[in-house]
Amino acid sequence: MKIIVVNKNINPNIKKLLISKKNEIFSADEYVNGIVNGNRNMLSKAITLLESNLNDDLKKADQIIKMCLPFSGKSRRIGITGVPGVGKSTFIDYFGLKLIENNHKIAVLAIDPSSSLSGGSILGDKTRMESISGKIEAFVRPSPTSGTLGGVASKTRETIVLCEAAGFDTIIIETVGVGQSEIAVSSMVDLFLMLFVAGTGDELQGIKRGIMEMTDILVFTKNDGANIDRTKVAKIQFETALKFFSTKESNWLPKVCCVSAFEKSGFNELNVIIEQYFNHITKNGFIVQNRKNQSLQWLNDQIIDNLKKDFYQNETIKKSITKITQQIVNQQISPIYAAKELIKKYLQQTRDFNK
Amino acid sequence: MKIIVVNKNINPNIKKLLISKKNEIFSADEYVNGIVNGNRNMLSKAITLLESNLNDDLKKADQIIKMCLPFSGKSRRIGITGVPGVGKSTFIDYFGLKLIENNHKIAVLAIDPSSSLSGGSILGDKTRMESISGKIEAFVRPSPTSGTLGGVASKTRETIVLCEAAGFDTIIIETVGVGQSEIAVSSMVDLFLMLFVAGTGDELQGIKRGIMEMTDILVFTKNDGANIDRTKVAKIQFETALKFFSTKESNWLPKVCCVSAFEKSGFNELNVIIEQYFNHITKNGFIVQNRKNQSLQWLNDQIIDNLKKDFYQNETIKKSITKITQQIVNQQISPIYAAKELIKKYLQQTRDFNK
Repeated sequence: MKIIVVNKNINPNIKKLLISKKNEIFSADEYVNGIVNGNRNMLSKAITLLESNLNDDLKKADQIIKMCLPFSGKSRRIGITGVPGVGKSTFIDYFGLKLIENNHKIAVLAIDPSSSLSGGSILGDKTRMESISGKIEAFVRPSPTSGTLGGVASKTRETIVLCEAAGFDTIIIETVGVGQSEIAVSSMVDLFLMLFVAGTGDELQGIKRGIMEMTDILVFTKNDGANIDRTKVAKIQFETALKFFSTKESNWLPKVCCVSAFEKSGFNELNVIIEQYFNHITKNGFIVQNRKNQSLQWLNDQIIDNLKKDFYQNETIKKSITKITQQIVNQQISPIYAAKELIKKYLQQTRDFNK
Repeated sequence: MKIIVVNKNINPNIKKLLISKKNEIFSADEYVNGIVNGNRNMLSKAITLLESNLNDDLKKADQIIKMCLPFSGKSRRIGITGVPGVGKSTFIDYFGLKLIENNHKIAVLAIDPSSSLSGGSILGDKTRMESISGKIEAFVRPSPTSGTLGGVASKTRETIVLCEAAGFDTIIIETVGVGQSEIAVSSMVDLFLMLFVAGTGDELQGIKRGIMEMTDILVFTKNDGANIDRTKVAKIQFETALKFFSTKESNWLPKVCCVSAFEKSGFNELNVIIEQYFNHITKNGFIVQNRKNQSLQWLNDQIIDNLKKDFYQNETIKKSITKITQQIVNQQISPIYAAKELIKKYLQQTRDFNK
């Protein structure tokens, strides 16, 4: 296939094509052409494709990703986390605005496994990131909320590829809470920021070593008014605590930074630290090595996804599982034993297949 | 095998056996005999076995679980969550003490996926749950911290079986943060408590609908001093918000309760609500149906674990994976495509095996 790359100015033929096919089905080539020419509409539609449950959509999405891969990988990928109430959206809104002022194009994606039951927060989502969400240099998109964390993470990785191919040079992955989703996010970013608000008293107890150890820059938010003194104390406590952590693979000593989105303070300092960080990991080769490891992690996640699919679509399994399920429900066999029996059957069946 | 059940008073023969074999390797039968006779030491050792990475240990653990299963299932399983700083440990300590006063035997297990990198919180663990951890009626045990959330959850399910077989009638599963681990915990408990502290202002935004919808009782902690007024307001807000949620499968309308571990207030009210809850789900059969569904979830998790193990131990895969890994690292192929190729090979290989 031929990909027509027209930087900045969109090719009039494609433009015509896009307008004329507004309600039609696009080919993978058309999607890719649109994306690499920075067409946000096509980018959005392609992400929707990969979130689809239809096999045809997913096949097309696979093709699109494959074609976009050579155009990807050139962005800075930044993970941002913090417990609810820390002010993530407000922070990202102003942080993003500063990046745009410095001529960056940013994509903000959100991983939120906690909403996998029914999606979305109670309030919040509508008024989030007001300053950047209207800008042409920003693309804000929540991640798919259905499915397991593994599935969500996989889709996010693919979304990163598409956004990078569309020319966004800074990808921000936002995640909620302190838990497993951080580990998923850290498996797809170059830099991991943790937001924290000082003054709740027992914060040190709450911060788990695991999360702290994946943090590159600890950002105290809401550093204004009565909070300034508390932040100062907390900053010292954290800087002391950081010394007890083992050296990071990146050989980077985590830094602490205090900001206030309300007073618009601290963001220049933060940007200086971020530049220092990227210089550091570029110089020592960590950024390249880390991305290689992340690709292998992605491979592993894909393998599990595919294995699962093949197992549950297997005819023998489909037939046996009803009976075994019944036995488990009647407490005749344990789930551990039942799983072993099913796997044995599955492997035997695939082995007998070509006899 | 023969299991000698000696309620309350331990059989002198077993006692002798346990003392004499202090530093020796026990058989599965000996473990089970110890556990069902309430021997805490044997219970601890058995849990350590199932957290082991050695194949022999795991095989023995499997046998132990299988033999303990008929003795399990008779406890109340309670999940407790809340973001860091909400006072989970203090709450559980006093809540547990009240249960013990009412002649219950409690086991407290903690699921903490965030510590999977290097385990444990910075401070905290040593001074946690001072009142109950010395008591014979309480068994406090952190969950295995290594491995994926799926692995940790699986081990926790097995630990529940052992604790129940050992005679603990209330199992408390504690988890940190607001995220994926809550979903794992809710897949193994009868009752789900969420702790919350009023007064951070933007709490409604932070609470994800998914987590709220799995909550049966919302507990406001630290309901003392200046917090009392804030709790009152928050309670009303939450009771209003709860009305917007869809009906739960258990047909239980979530309740809100305010406690203070400092002032030792609110715990009697909480116990009344908990009794109401268990009466409700026993009467309408939800407790039985829910546990059936949980067993099937457990089956599914076990299947995935086993599939993964068989795949990566396959000789053909072991040989191909190095080359494919290299190609991914060199950006010659994408992880998505590579995974598909490997799966194809794996299934083909198992199919050709018996030709």
